[in-house]
This record gives sequence, C-alpha cells and structure tokens, in this order.
Amino acid sequence: MHHGIGFIQDLAVVMAFAAAVTVLFHRLKQPVVLGYIAAGVIIGPYTPPFQLIHDEQSIQTLGELGVMFLMFSLGLEFSLRKLFKVGATAIVAALSEIVLMVWIGYEIGSAFGWSQMDALFLGAILAISSTTIIVKALSDLGLKRERFAQLVFGILIVEDILGIAMLVLLTGIAQTGQLSAGLAVITLGKLLLFMTVSLLVGILVVPRALNYVARTGSDEMLLVSVLGFCFGFCLLVVKLDYSIALGAFLIGAIMAESRHLHRIEHLIAPLRDAFSAIFFVTIGLLLNPAVLLDYAWPIAVITLAVIIGKLVSCGLGTFLSGQDARTSMRVGMTVSQIGEFSFIIASLGLTLKVTSAFLYPVAVAVSVLTTLFTPYLIRAADPLTRRLSNAMPATFANVFGMYGQWLRSLRTASGEPTLFGMTRRIILQIAVNLALVAAIFLGVSYGAPSAGKLLAQWLNAEAMQRAVLWSAALIVSMPFLVAVYRKTKSLALLLAEVSVQPATAGRFTSAIRYAISDLVPIVSMVGVFLLVAALSGSILPPTGLLIAVLVCAALLLALLWRWCVKIHASMQIALRETFEEQADP
Amino acid sequence: MHHGIGFIQDLAVVMAFAAAVTVLFHRLKQPVVLGYIAAGVIIGPYTPPFQLIHDEQSIQTLGELGVMFLMFSLGLEFSLRKLFKVGATAIVAALSEIVLMVWIGYEIGSAFGWSQMDALFLGAILAISSTTIIVKALSDLGLKRERFAQLVFGILIVEDILGIAMLVLLTGIAQTGQLSAGLAVITLGKLLLFMTVSLLVGILVVPRALNYVARTGSDEMLLVSVLGFCFGFCLLVVKLDYSIALGAFLIGAIMAESRHLHRIEHLIAPLRDAFSAIFFVTIGLLLNPAVLLDYAWPIAVITLAVIIGKLVSCGLGTFLSGQDARTSMRVGMTVSQIGEFSFIIASLGLTLKVTSAFLYPVAVAVSVLTTLFTPYLIRAADPLTRRLSNAMPATFANVFGMYGQWLRSLRTASGEPTLFGMTRRIILQIAVNLALVAAIFLGVSYGAPSAGKLLAQWLNAEAMQRAVLWSAALIVSMPFLVAVYRKTKSLALLLAEVSVQPATAGRFTSAIRYAISDLVPIVSMVGVFLLVAALSGSILPPTGLLIAVLVCAALLLALLWRWCVKIHASMQIALRETFEEQADP
Repeated sequence: MHHGIGFIQDLAVVMAFAAAVTVLFHRLKQPVVLGYIAAGVIIGPYTPPFQLIHDEQSIQTLGELGVMFLMFSLGLEFSLRKLFKVGATAIVAALSEIVLMVWIGYEIGSAFGWSQMDALFLGAILAISSTTIIVKALSDLGLKRERFAQLVFGILIVEDILGIAMLVLLTGIAQTGQLSAGLAVITLGKLLLFMTVSLLVGILVVPRALNYVARTGSDEMLLVSVLGFCFGFCLLVVKLDYSIALGAFLIGAIMAESRHLHRIEHLIAPLRDAFSAIFFVTIGLLLNPAVLLDYAWPIAVITLAVIIGKLVSCGLGTFLSGQDARTSMRVGMTVSQIGEFSFIIASLGLTLKVTSAFLYPVAVAVSVLTTLFTPYLIRAADPLTRRLSNAMPATFANVFGMYGQWLRSLRTASGEPTLFGMTRRIILQIAVNLALVAAIFLGVSYGAPSAGKLLAQWLNAEAMQRAVLWSAALIVSMPFLVAVYRKTKSLALLLAEVSVQPATAGRFTSAIRYAISDLVPIVSMVGVFLLVAALSGSILPPTGLLIAVLVCAALLLALLWRWCVKIHASMQIALRETFEEQADP
Repeated sequence: MHHGIGFIQDLAVVMAFAAAVTVLFHRLKQPVVLGYIAAGVIIGPYTPPFQLIHDEQSIQTLGELGVMFLMFSLGLEFSLRKLFKVGATAIVAALSEIVLMVWIGYEIGSAFGWSQMDALFLGAILAISSTTIIVKALSDLGLKRERFAQLVFGILIVEDILGIAMLVLLTGIAQTGQLSAGLAVITLGKLLLFMTVSLLVGILVVPRALNYVARTGSDEMLLVSVLGFCFGFCLLVVKLDYSIALGAFLIGAIMAESRHLHRIEHLIAPLRDAFSAIFFVTIGLLLNPAVLLDYAWPIAVITLAVIIGKLVSCGLGTFLSGQDARTSMRVGMTVSQIGEFSFIIASLGLTLKVTSAFLYPVAVAVSVLTTLFTPYLIRAADPLTRRLSNAMPATFANVFGMYGQWLRSLRTASGEPTLFGMTRRIILQIAVNLALVAAIFLGVSYGAPSAGKLLAQWLNAEAMQRAVLWSAALIVSMPFLVAVYRKTKSLALLLAEVSVQPATAGRFTSAIRYAISDLVPIVSMVGVFLLVAALSGSILPPTGLLIAVLVCAALLLALLWRWCVKIHASMQIALRETFEEQADP
C-alpha cells in the first residue's frame, strides 16, 4: 500500500486547500465555488511557490467524475412535471436568451479578430446560466419560494436541455468544420429520438428496479445500484458518441421519477460535493493569471455583454410571454451569469482541439466576475423596475400594459380545448410510438455487424442474416406498430367526424366517414413502412425475402393482435403510474 | 470529454456487476461483502467470458481509497470512552486471540511446507476478526444490544489497534527479513509514541476546526474539510512510512471526539460504501478460482482452524477475565471469521513482494467460508453451552464456578482504590507529557536536514545550527517539561507520605518526606534530560554550546514558569472539554 503516494498527496493538497480557501470565502460571504477556483489557482502550475500537484491527469479524471455527478444531480432536480407547469414562458425566455447570447458572443469574438471557431464557442459559453450559482444566491437571499424563482428554475431546465443539444451540435461542427442545415436537423433529430426513447424505456425500467433494491432498506445497495445505472448508462451514451454530461443528466432525470428520489439525492450529495470540488479546483488549475492580464479588455467587454445581454434577452422573453414587468426584470437579473456549463463547453473546445488556449481562462474570468455580481444584481432588480417605470413615457407604459392584457385574453379564448387537446394527445402518442419503432430498427441496424458475426455460425447467406435481424426488429416493434395503427384510426375517426358534416356530404356522410377512418390508417402504415425501410437500410432483406417476412409477420400479427394491444396497454399504465407516483418525503 | 472512456467503462462494469450480484446475494440472505467479491471474480481476468476491466491499476487505486474510507469509518466508531468501559476483558480476550491465532497460522503454514514469510503472514491474516461481518450478522440476528455484543465490540476495538501494530511490525520484518526483540520494542514504542501524540494534538485541533466549519451549516464545506484533514493526515502518516490504513484509522478516532460526529458519519457513509464496494470487487479481481482448487486442502484446514482457534482463544480469554460460560461461548462464536483486515494484510504481503501468489486467494477463500458460517455459529452458541454444561463432570463445573467467584471477590477487594487510582493517574499524566516532549525532539531531529539548509543562509557553523534547533525544541517542550517536574513532585510527595511513616522514621519523618519530594523530581529531570539527549542525538549541540543553551533555558524558565503552568493547564482543560462533550444526536 506504499505505492500511490503521489495520488494521495494530490488529493490531500486539493482537499486541504479547497477546504481552507472555501471557509475563508464563506467568511467573506462569497460563493463556495469561487473558493474552489481560487484554491485551484493557488496550487496550480502558473502561480508560485511551486507545482504542488504530481499527476494532473488523475485529478482531471476525478474532476470529470465531478461533472458527471453535477449533471446527474441536475437531472435529479429536473422534472417533466415541473417543466409542463412553467412550460411556455420558460421555453420562450430560454430560447430568446440562447439565440441572442450565441449571436452576441459570436459577434464579440469576431470583433476581437478571433478565429471563427473561437467566436462560436464563445457564443456557446455565454449562452447558458449557472444553476448552481442561482440556487445558491436565491437561497442566500431567501427568495427561493417566490414566483419568479419558479420561472427561473423552469428556464434553467429548458436551458439544460438546449445546452445539451448545443454540446452535440458543437461536437459535430468541430469535427466536420461546418454546420449544414441538413446535418443539424439530422443531429438534433437523432438526439431527440435518443432522449425520448431513453426517457421512456428508462422510466419504465429504472425506477422499478430501484424500488426493488430500496425495499431491502440497505442504503449501501441502493447507492451501488444507482451508481451502476449511472455509470452504465453514461457508458452507453459515450459509446453512441454523445457526452458523459448528457448521459448523466438523462439518467438523473429518469431516476427523478423514482419514489425514492429523496433518499437517492441524500446518498449522492456527498459524492457530488467531493468530486465537484475537485472539478472546480481543476478549473483553477488550468487558469493562467498572466492570460487574464493579457485579455483584460475582452474580459471586461464580455462580462458587460453577459449581464446586459441576458437581462435584455431573458427579461424580454419573459415579458413577451405575458409576465409583468417586475417579474421579468427579476428573472433577467437572476440569470445574468455563466457557470459550470460554460466550463464544460470550454473544456469540450480544448478536448476537441478546435479552440485557442486563451478561451478557457477568459471564460473562467467572466464566470467569476458575473458570479460576484449576481447577488447585487438580484437585489437591484426591484429598484431598477421602479425607476424605469417612472422614467417611461405614459403612452409607452400603456402599450406595454395593453400587450399583457391582450395576451391574457388570448389565452382564455383559445377555443375548443377538448377537440384540440384530444387531437394533440393522440398525435403525441403516435409520435412516441413511432419514435420507439424507429429506435428499435436503428438499434438493430447499429448492432447488425456484431450480430451478423454471431449469426454467421448458423447462417451463411448474408441475405438470410438480414432477414432474421429485420424480422426480429419487426417482432419487437409489433406492439408499438399496432398502437400506431389504432391511434391513427381513432385520429382519423375524430377528424372525419369533425370535417365531414351532414350539411355538405348529405346521405354519404357516414360512408365517407368510414372510408376516411379506414383509408387514413392504411395509408399511414404504408408511410410507416417506408420510414422503417429507410431507417433500416443496412439490414433490409432483398425483395423476395422481404415479402416472405412481411407475410409471416401479417400471419403472426393476426394471431397476436390482442396480446400486442394488451402488452402495450400495460406498458402505458406502468409509465403513467411511475409518473403519477409522488416521491416519498 | 471523450477521453477516459476506458475509466468510465471500468467503473460501469464494477458498479453494475456489484449491484446485480449483491442484490442477488441479498435475496439468498448472504452478506453484501460476499456479493462484491463474487462480482469481482466474475469480471476478473481468470474467469470466462473475457477480461472486462481495461485499466486494473486505476481500479486498484480507487480500491485503496476504499480501504482508507473503511478504516476511517472504523476510527469514527472507535471511542476511547467505550474502550475504557469494557477495558480489561476486551484486552485479555483480544490478546489471547491474536497470540494464539498467529501461532496456529504459523504452525499450519510451516506444516504445509510454506516459506517462513508465508507462514508468518498467514498467522497475521488469521489473527483479526471482521468488524463489518460481525456488525452485519449481529444486527441481522437482532442481538446488537445484548451485553455480549458490547464485549465483542470492545474486543474488535482492541483488535484494530493490535492489528495496526501488526501491520507496522510485519512491514519491518518484511523489509529487514527478521524480527529482533530490540527492533520490535523500538518499532512498537515509536508507533505508540506517534499514536499518543497524534491523538493528543489531533483531539486538541481537529474537532475545534470542524466545529467552526460545521457552524456555517454547509454540509459541503464540512465534507470537504473532513476530507482535507483525512487525506492530509494520511499523507503525513505515509511520509513517516506508516500505512494509509493507520492514518485513516487515527484521524477517524480523532474526529470521533467531534460534536458533529453523526453529521460526519452521514456524509462519509456514501463515499465509504462506493469506494469499499470497489475495494471488495478488486479482491475478487485478484482471485484465481484455479488456485482455490489446487489449495482446497489447506483452505479446509485453515477454515477449521480459524473457527476452533478463535472460539477457544477468544472464548477462554473472555472466561478467564471473569465472564460467565454462556457469554464467553457467544463471544467466541461471534468472532469466528476473518475479513477486511486479513485482505489488507494479504495485500501488504503482495505489495512488499514477500509472500507467494497463492496466499491471497487462500485468505479470501477462508474469509468467504468463515463469513458464510458466522450467523449459524452465533445461533449455535447457546445450545452448545447447554450441551457442554450437561456433559461436563460436576467437579469440573465446580472448579469453573469457583474461579469466577474468586475473580469477582478479588475485584471488590482490590484495596485502596484512592491511592492506587491517584498514583496511576499521575503516572499516566507524566507518561503523556514525556511522550509529547519526546515527540517534539524527535520531530525536530526528523526535520533537521531541511531546516538546516534554511538556517544555512544565516548560520554557517553546523554547531550553531544544532544549538538553534535544539533550543527551539527545548522552548516548545518547556510547558510539558514543567508539567513533568510538577507531576513527579506531587507523585514523590504522595509516595513519601505513604512510605515514610512516623512509626519508623520518628522525628525525621517530615524531613525525610521533604528530602524525597525534592530529590526525586530532580533525579527524574536528569533522567529526562538523558532521554532527550539520546533521542535528539543528531541535533545535540557540542558540550560548550549545550551548557550555554541550558543556562539560557534555565533563566527563561525562571521568567516563564507561571506562564508555562498556565498554558499547560489550559491545554489540559481544552482536551478534557473535547472528551467530555457528547456528540449531537
């Protein structure tokens, strides 16, 4: 046990300095996170007295685990239910914030003559606010339960999702050097498909498994199971070329639907705190104070741009979606900083070797400055609103007031909620089932090369191998195909009912209605078949075999129709149960 | 973030298998620890289908952190107060167990023709029972609150301390190839000195610092501070050539005196569980099932030896220290297994490259078997006692009964508890203060080479450097030297009072008493000076300078006498306060 002294020394240095500096920062009433970063700078290679860390690579690896635990905790706090509640406002505000900030960042980077990739990454770095800092600041100020705080949390959730999409897009752009619209759509489509399917399958499987383990009453087994799922899912995600951050966030969101959410949060908190401390210290380790002096001017400009840009974009977005001026101002002031996500994006740039070395310290410096200002900005929101409304000309104020009223009147008058709601719901269900079918065929195609090798022991002809794989995918997706057919049929019936009125169709009314409700599903299923064939191109058997497979499938379907309906229904019920179950206090 | 996939994969494999197998083992009502080991065997390199771990070295390093957290938790549960309560019985039982088991192990190893070092390590491996397994088994059987369980926990605490001494001794033997009595005494003396001083200084400093941090109410900062102290102290211990296990145990025992013990235990539990899971999995990774078949015969013999040997040694030790037959049998049956400490000793042998490769798997196999038997043995204790007492001849039973009575009568009649108690207490205080003085001089000698370099900037002559260092040590140890002098004086007074009776000394009584109480301390201080001179050989200045330093010191002492007395008193009060403070619930 005498080897690995260097590792113990590194951990001792990191933890001891982190503890001492954060306690000092706490006395100075500054956020803990800044203390970690400062500790990292002190023990880092760029500051005297000397290099205290032996094996920076090991510490970086542990820091990456810190990112994983941070994103996992974010996921645990994410809740589909909460998202549905604040919905519209959060989406409008987050979208306008991200679009504007990416643009501002890109323009500033270009104005300073930085490379296109640096400018693009700067935009991404500025886009997303820091959940950690905001939660800390709001609870310090005692504002966590206010209405605007709920809105801010909604915005942060949407930002997290969009941020993850951004990570995926940036990786794509960095690897291909460009962003074609088609590629972006395909990339985001694949991401959406992956997220939907993982959430669905995950929520069906993981909370049940954890409930089973939790019933033993052993915290140890529950923790190890949670970690097993977490690392396992992250591994799957990494193998599919997405980031660990995405995997950790998704599996966290899946576990957020477990009944034992609070126990899991308790067990994970120490691991998250320990490893995220290491992560924030590694940020300080990478920070070269000399670079900060060289880039003092850009840092000042960017800091100002973050504060004003976020206030305007997010505040205006909130206001445009129908909130009053005071709430909008408070929301805008609260999100006026960048944090952990920015570090993740900045280190992505470094890892992919597409950004310059100065971008990382600049991002850290801007984050530190904006973090320092956050509590003061939040407190300044109300006075600023009052001063603005006093200074505003009366006609202006009237127009703003009328806009709010019009928006609210619009919302109550958005007629026929029943038909509209029903249609939306059926379409959503069809989309979800189609996503599952697509995922099954894509998954089988993905695994085809290795499955083919296995099959080669019994089947020589490649065409036969394909036929077997394709049939397997077809059988597995049968319950979902049946569901798609049935939902399409009820949608067609509903639409026929509404659109074909006796007044115009006369005595053919019911005939036409029946024709529509029979025809539409069949046409749709042909479309579904074409879609599936396109997705599973690499394992689609030749025409002859394909027809044989389809005929067999049709026979099987006739036999198993009722079983398919039943299994789909029970899955749907299980999903709904998991969703509607409240977490134990 | 796309590098380090191998590391994530390793963690995913370890955690997922650990979770699955332990849940299965829990269903089969077997201990979790066995599940971890089984998971390790499955994913290990010796079993099909294939090697699942990429970078065994990284996983081993994390496993070492698991040992650290395990020993740290043991330390947190260790309590000087609890130890004082069960005192005598625990010490007698643990000592007889360890001595007998080391001897049995050594004899078995020699009988199988193994090398001397293998036989010795086997003895050490068999010596110490598994706290984890025992706590688990007793709480499963609902016996944790019984009186014999308290005794068992006391025995385990003593075993932990003796086990750590054994680790140190084994390291010494392995490095020098032999055990000379003198070396053993010096090694154990140094260990005792180091433990006493760290406990004293640690209990004065660490709980106070943690209380300060805990008052912020932030679990995150408390955790990081705990980890900072833990890793920092382990680093110090490793630099002094002791093991991380010792360091973690000691710092745990120090923190056990903190008022926030329960909060600390809560925060550390997930880290301990996660990393110790990795540790136990790495034990399985190292296990080659083929070796187990080759060594089936020794494994069977050793398993039987562990069960019978521990039952006899520990049970008899308990009985001889005055417990009744039923309690003794229960204690003996409970400790009849080996566990985590055995793995630590076995891996020490591997690390030091003095034991053969087969010893580790043999130790694991014996641990697995004895762990499996533990719950059945505990339950068999009472029936066995009854059968034995029925089968025992009446005269035998009478002798046993009389032994117990005689022991109990002895205890109440062990006259003059006041004088005896007072003497013992003063001697203890003198010993503690002497230990501190010795530690100060040893510490300064240890740091002399680097301090000398620093001093060389101002002082060229080596003799002067020594004089400065020696004076510094003398000044720092002054309060403790004064305390030694004063305690010796009061001891001498006390003894003079008792031994010199007016009946024999007549009218010289008070004169002789005064002479003794003045003479003894002065003679003792000369002895202390010789001791210090011997310990600080490398920094002892030449005679001329030494006399000068001593004269200066005497002058300083005359000036600062009262201050020395005061500072020592306040340290003593602070220590007592920390001890007497109860942990928050």
